[in-house]
Amino acid sequence: METRFATRMSVMKPSSIREILKTTERPDIISFGGGLPAPELFPVEDIRIAAESVLCDCGPRAFQYGITEGIPALREWIARDMANRGTASTTDEILVTTGSQQGLDLIGKVFLDPGDVILTENPTYLAAIQAFQCFQARFRAVPTDDGGIIPEAVDELAADGSVKFIYVIPNFQNPTGRTLEAARRRKLYDVAEKRNLIIVEDDPYGRIRYRGRDIPPIKSFDASGRVIYLSTFSKTVAPGFRTGWIVASGKIREKLIIAKQAADLHTSSFDQMVLERYLRDFDSNAHVEKVRKAYGARYAVMDEALEKYMPSGFSWTHPEGGLFLWVQGPRGFDAAGILPKAIESKVAFVPGKDFFPEGGGEGNMRLNFSNSTPELINEGIRRLAGICERL
Amino acid sequence: METRFATRMSVMKPSSIREILKTTERPDIISFGGGLPAPELFPVEDIRIAAESVLCDCGPRAFQYGITEGIPALREWIARDMANRGTASTTDEILVTTGSQQGLDLIGKVFLDPGDVILTENPTYLAAIQAFQCFQARFRAVPTDDGGIIPEAVDELAADGSVKFIYVIPNFQNPTGRTLEAARRRKLYDVAEKRNLIIVEDDPYGRIRYRGRDIPPIKSFDASGRVIYLSTFSKTVAPGFRTGWIVASGKIREKLIIAKQAADLHTSSFDQMVLERYLRDFDSNAHVEKVRKAYGARYAVMDEALEKYMPSGFSWTHPEGGLFLWVQGPRGFDAAGILPKAIESKVAFVPGKDFFPEGGGEGNMRLNFSNSTPELINEGIRRLAGICERL
Repeated sequence: METRFATRMSVMKPSSIREILKTTERPDIISFGGGLPAPELFPVEDIRIAAESVLCDCGPRAFQYGITEGIPALREWIARDMANRGTASTTDEILVTTGSQQGLDLIGKVFLDPGDVILTENPTYLAAIQAFQCFQARFRAVPTDDGGIIPEAVDELAADGSVKFIYVIPNFQNPTGRTLEAARRRKLYDVAEKRNLIIVEDDPYGRIRYRGRDIPPIKSFDASGRVIYLSTFSKTVAPGFRTGWIVASGKIREKLIIAKQAADLHTSSFDQMVLERYLRDFDSNAHVEKVRKAYGARYAVMDEALEKYMPSGFSWTHPEGGLFLWVQGPRGFDAAGILPKAIESKVAFVPGKDFFPEGGGEGNMRLNFSNSTPELINEGIRRLAGICERL
Repeated sequence: METRFATRMSVMKPSSIREILKTTERPDIISFGGGLPAPELFPVEDIRIAAESVLCDCGPRAFQYGITEGIPALREWIARDMANRGTASTTDEILVTTGSQQGLDLIGKVFLDPGDVILTENPTYLAAIQAFQCFQARFRAVPTDDGGIIPEAVDELAADGSVKFIYVIPNFQNPTGRTLEAARRRKLYDVAEKRNLIIVEDDPYGRIRYRGRDIPPIKSFDASGRVIYLSTFSKTVAPGFRTGWIVASGKIREKLIIAKQAADLHTSSFDQMVLERYLRDFDSNAHVEKVRKAYGARYAVMDEALEKYMPSGFSWTHPEGGLFLWVQGPRGFDAAGILPKAIESKVAFVPGKDFFPEGGGEGNMRLNFSNSTPELINEGIRRLAGICERL
């Protein structure tokens, strides 16, 4: 049988990360490949009590269809929490999504016609590239340095008026771990005002800061409703709930709700209720503090191991939070080329090139440190360094 | 701020059903509007025990990221259950979706370029129209009678080779409650073979049959992998889990998985595990039997009330299963026109016209009987009939 698929499917490929993940699910491999939180930190017992309490109090309501926007109590909690951390938003402006990934998909649906231009950091989050590719976007990768995306470059790249939006991850970016400087956030917002750009601010890691001081999100300057802010409970509670949110207002919010109706009607009522009960009845800030400390310690172990074992010519980022760091090899280093040897030595990572929408990154590796114990991090880096040394 | 949305958003409107649902959430209204299952039948206590058991045995695994295809144990259960009911399929062919609605969205993504032609029953499921509109499909509505869609008409409408797929709900269709006759299923499949059509077979209600004998799904004839079958736990267990599935094979399956990765990575791990545990540890067939009986009784009450109260000139369908029946008013009857009066009298329904992708249906009403008690069904029909009488 000959099947005619949509044009978009010719550019969409399976995520290399998820393919690597499959090979590294073998328990004997030390994987720096995925972006998995540490499961041993999930507040399982608290969630168990929350679930029990939802099932006793709410009964059938936890299993019925709900409204597309998400359950009001959860949206109220999110709005309050965002206000506490400097970004006022109303309950109405919160749309619960089936993970942040759905947020990206909905934004693609609402804004993108085939051939539309979007700006991203260079490199940027692989699954965002996939989500926007699905709507046949054209990518312009914006020059990015240790301080994040360069606002002047955004201004130039958006000068022709063809850009639909700019996608940025300001805190502990995936894949680099870099943070967008406070002054640049302001400048980026001003450029967006000047060029009439929408800013898609993706902030899954913002609360996992283990060094330095919080920087206000771009959304906090948003006087004209041009910033669409996304976040998730995946890193602060658990990813298995697939529960995230979008903050947006006015017409953008309306369109996102219509798109979500058509996409999955609404996010799981049961998951939303259990999460809301957990957040209400337990000290989730204390839990986030625990996650922060653990990831900070793991980052420090990885950084130390890289210092100790890696041959000269390699450098890496020093994130102040999040789950990843980013290694730059010496000239001619081919990260994808050494991956098979690494897997033979039972250590895995993600080669950099898939994170570059316009090509490049062959000499980079993304390393995740949240999902391995300090001992395994040390051993994994020792193995990886051994391979890099023998090149 | 002037915002440029994607072209698709100009045709996508909020679902009139969900808007009606909002007005009818008031507890004093008897609503035949939504498609809500009876919450008092949800197996809450069994789910509570299943959730408890998942939390004790699986701990953190229930909250971690999972594979896009869905958890293997749940897919195995689905494959076995489908085989038991006459449609052999392998675990590999099952893709868990975030409700059946996501299945429709993924199918739209995988197949539809703007302007592509699809065939549907006339009338058809409103939220399927929305899902496919999102990909700018053009609809050709196929003539349909009490035996369902007419295969000869499909053959004619597909003769020009431009049709991407045909979308059908063979059992207790939404909105009409009609069932596609066995002989027509075979003929429809043969037409699909002849015209090289994909068939999207949506079967959310198939297990809720309270009269007559089961008819094998179109998927059961599928020798060439051209039938994509969708179903859900929304009607047999509970909709709040947002857990459904697609059965597809070969390249279609591969593309659907890629599309789902970009859409939400995967469906909630927690929901999938709790569902799987419930299905494994409890007699879900006995539960479905209970639902069947209750809905059958409610249908009978509605049918009787219609007989008793409706003025002459009105007729309605006599479904053998499912959640809805479909009323046809006399010439000139305007269902949308009487809705405000109905809501004033505290009874609600969905006017027929939104179910017709090419227009028509002004004289129809969709009535849901699963979500009201027999007493309220009788009283609601009495009120509705009163309004129809006074026209």
